[in-house]
Amino acid sequence: MAKLYFRYSAMNAGKSTAMLQVAHNYEEQGQMVRLFTAVIDNRYGVGKVTSRLGPQRETEVFDANTDFLQVVDKKIACLLVDEAQFLSKEQVKQLHQLAQVRGVPVITYGLRSDFRGEPFPGSSYLLALADDIEEIKNICSCGKKATMNIRVDDNGKRIKDGEQISIGGNESYRQACGRCFYSEIH
Amino acid sequence: MAKLYFRYSAMNAGKSTAMLQVAHNYEEQGQMVRLFTAVIDNRYGVGKVTSRLGPQRETEVFDANTDFLQVVDKKIACLLVDEAQFLSKEQVKQLHQLAQVRGVPVITYGLRSDFRGEPFPGSSYLLALADDIEEIKNICSCGKKATMNIRVDDNGKRIKDGEQISIGGNESYRQACGRCFYSEIH
Amino acid sequence: MAKLYFRYSAMNAGKSTAMLQVAHNYEEQGQMVRLFTAVIDNRYGVGKVTSRLGPQRETEVFDANTDFLQVVDKKIACLLVDEAQFLSKEQVKQLHQLAQVRGVPVITYGLRSDFRGEPFPGSSYLLALADDIEEIKNICSCGKKATMNIRVDDNGKRIKDGEQISIGGNESYRQACGRCFYSEIH
Amino acid sequence: MAKLYFRYSAMNAGKSTAMLQVAHNYEEQGQMVRLFTAVIDNRYGVGKVTSRLGPQRETEVFDANTDFLQVVDKKIACLLVDEAQFLSKEQVKQLHQLAQVRGVPVITYGLRSDFRGEPFPGSSYLLALADDIEEIKNICSCGKKATMNIRVDDNGKRIKDGEQISIGGNESYRQACGRCFYSEIH
Repeated sequence: MAKLYFRYSAMNAGKSTAMLQVAHNYEEQGQMVRLFTAVIDNRYGVGKVTSRLGPQRETEVFDANTDFLQVVDKKIACLLVDEAQFLSKEQVKQLHQLAQVRGVPVITYGLRSDFRGEPFPGSSYLLALADDIEEIKNICSCGKKATMNIRVDDNGKRIKDGEQISIGGNESYRQACGRCFYSEIH
Repeated sequence: MAKLYFRYSAMNAGKSTAMLQVAHNYEEQGQMVRLFTAVIDNRYGVGKVTSRLGPQRETEVFDANTDFLQVVDKKIACLLVDEAQFLSKEQVKQLHQLAQVRGVPVITYGLRSDFRGEPFPGSSYLLALADDIEEIKNICSCGKKATMNIRVDDNGKRIKDGEQISIGGNESYRQACGRCFYSEIH
Repeated sequence: MAKLYFRYSAMNAGKSTAMLQVAHNYEEQGQMVRLFTAVIDNRYGVGKVTSRLGPQRETEVFDANTDFLQVVDKKIACLLVDEAQFLSKEQVKQLHQLAQVRGVPVITYGLRSDFRGEPFPGSSYLLALADDIEEIKNICSCGKKATMNIRVDDNGKRIKDGEQISIGGNESYRQACGRCFYSEIH
Repeated sequence: MAKLYFRYSAMNAGKSTAMLQVAHNYEEQGQMVRLFTAVIDNRYGVGKVTSRLGPQRETEVFDANTDFLQVVDKKIACLLVDEAQFLSKEQVKQLHQLAQVRGVPVITYGLRSDFRGEPFPGSSYLLALADDIEEIKNICSCGKKATMNIRVDDNGKRIKDGEQISIGGNESYRQACGRCFYSEIH
């Protein structure tokens, strides 16, 4: 009865920390896990999961061509996937089948929606299919729970339009509650 | 700090019962709620929410043209929406703003994915934006937790292809776990 | 991998409705369940679970002498227990073993704390041992989430002292949020 | 609408890591938090919270005489308490009032039950009163979810009897699922 888990949050909540802790917990028991992150995530270098608390470790990477049903051998205790919002529909279905048909627990971590409030494709399918959905909470600068993400330019000014994934720009992101997200002040 | 809630489940879990109970709880306190269901749901007649335990009550209906920001007066304690998988993207954003900007708690009930394992549009946006996501659990005929839905024809034979919403056919639906959903036996 | 579930709430949230729905869901699949409630609960007559929405059904009863490991045959799909705050420590351990050792899913419904804010004995052990803890939400008259219970006499005046269980009195109970519970106004 | 949170787990799940991450999240927003741990916890030295991933930081400590209503100034964004199973009943009520009456969010982390399956006093009251209960999951050596704790002597042999808190002994603890907890093999 293995499950597909999706642990979502807004930016900066501690998804990578949580994933490193789960890997540690399994390995402390002598059990083998495999960790993946998206090739697209080059904040800290390809193939690395980094906690803002300090710890980091190298991981395998997935890109649009990765077939998890091929890549994952059955003899692991758990498959961990960071930046799961970048998975394709087919990859989410592979992960769902890994858990439900082959019995490999799969825990994925990712954002739900982009800076426009639009779902990421990977997250849409994870939210639709995951056997267990859990929020990793974070706070907005106003003190309320953050559920949304805001894109800002290098002057700190909010950007409301553009492509879902910005390559090579100077944009950055921060979390916000729904009220601040819809506010014209920001 | 009102919230947008999405309480999802597979078929036949008791979503309508849960919604009638919440309405009862508010009204017992002397507080006013408004209930909506989708016009498309004519299982029991347009504008009716029916618990399989027996209780039912008439509701307002929404269709593709409903603008909840116009329709909902601020002076209610809670807005309840059944068959929320049929909401449009714009309607989910209206409900999110009703909760986050205007302070009206909104509780929505619906399915996550259709008989092909594809997300419903309304559910994709509810899962991406809701402040609180909660599962109403049900069981598969095999005893595992049901998370998926299966379409069967009037001979009880499973149908795997077709339109998301079947109008005027004799199809029916039942819940299934992931393992049974992917099984070729069914 | 059967589990012991504890679904708790304050007064009047819909615990009995939820339990009747789960029984219905199992039976609709042709699976057998057994329902118990406490002998002490004579609100609606001994051995009856009644939803405030209308539906009710007769149940078996437990008292201080019930040994669930003796009473429950392995061949049921699920054991459902209402008014679970009245279970003894030993009975909660029996239910935990039924789930974890014998593989019978056990779902219990009950209050957490009494009108003084003191835990019920059964709930203390359920909260300590249950594999899955889930809240059935209700609202306070002020609109916040209710988590506490208040005892009132037949003039509607709040009573703050007395025995945990009042036999034969005219007291009644209503739910409250923490803020109203601690308020001197009530 | 501040809340009292109780985030519980069995041994070694990552409670301290989670608490350090939350503190980091608040401080990254420029908001002030205060961290406490029990004086009794001298695994790593009094007044220190240590993640098994590496990070650690000094904290304030509480003992049986700490009155949180006196100690905690209103002008903090969040109060964080580790080893919360060692709180007294009165201290839990203080924390509940801090959240519900004074509006200070309080997040507590702790174990639910000891090596005999008995609730810790602090946890009994946290589980009875917390506005939000959340599990931090861990796995048993058998691969199932761990919910219980086992005491072992310095030869690794399981100890089933004794005081709840062992001072100066060589005992250690590990997490277990319910099935392994009740097994005679261990």
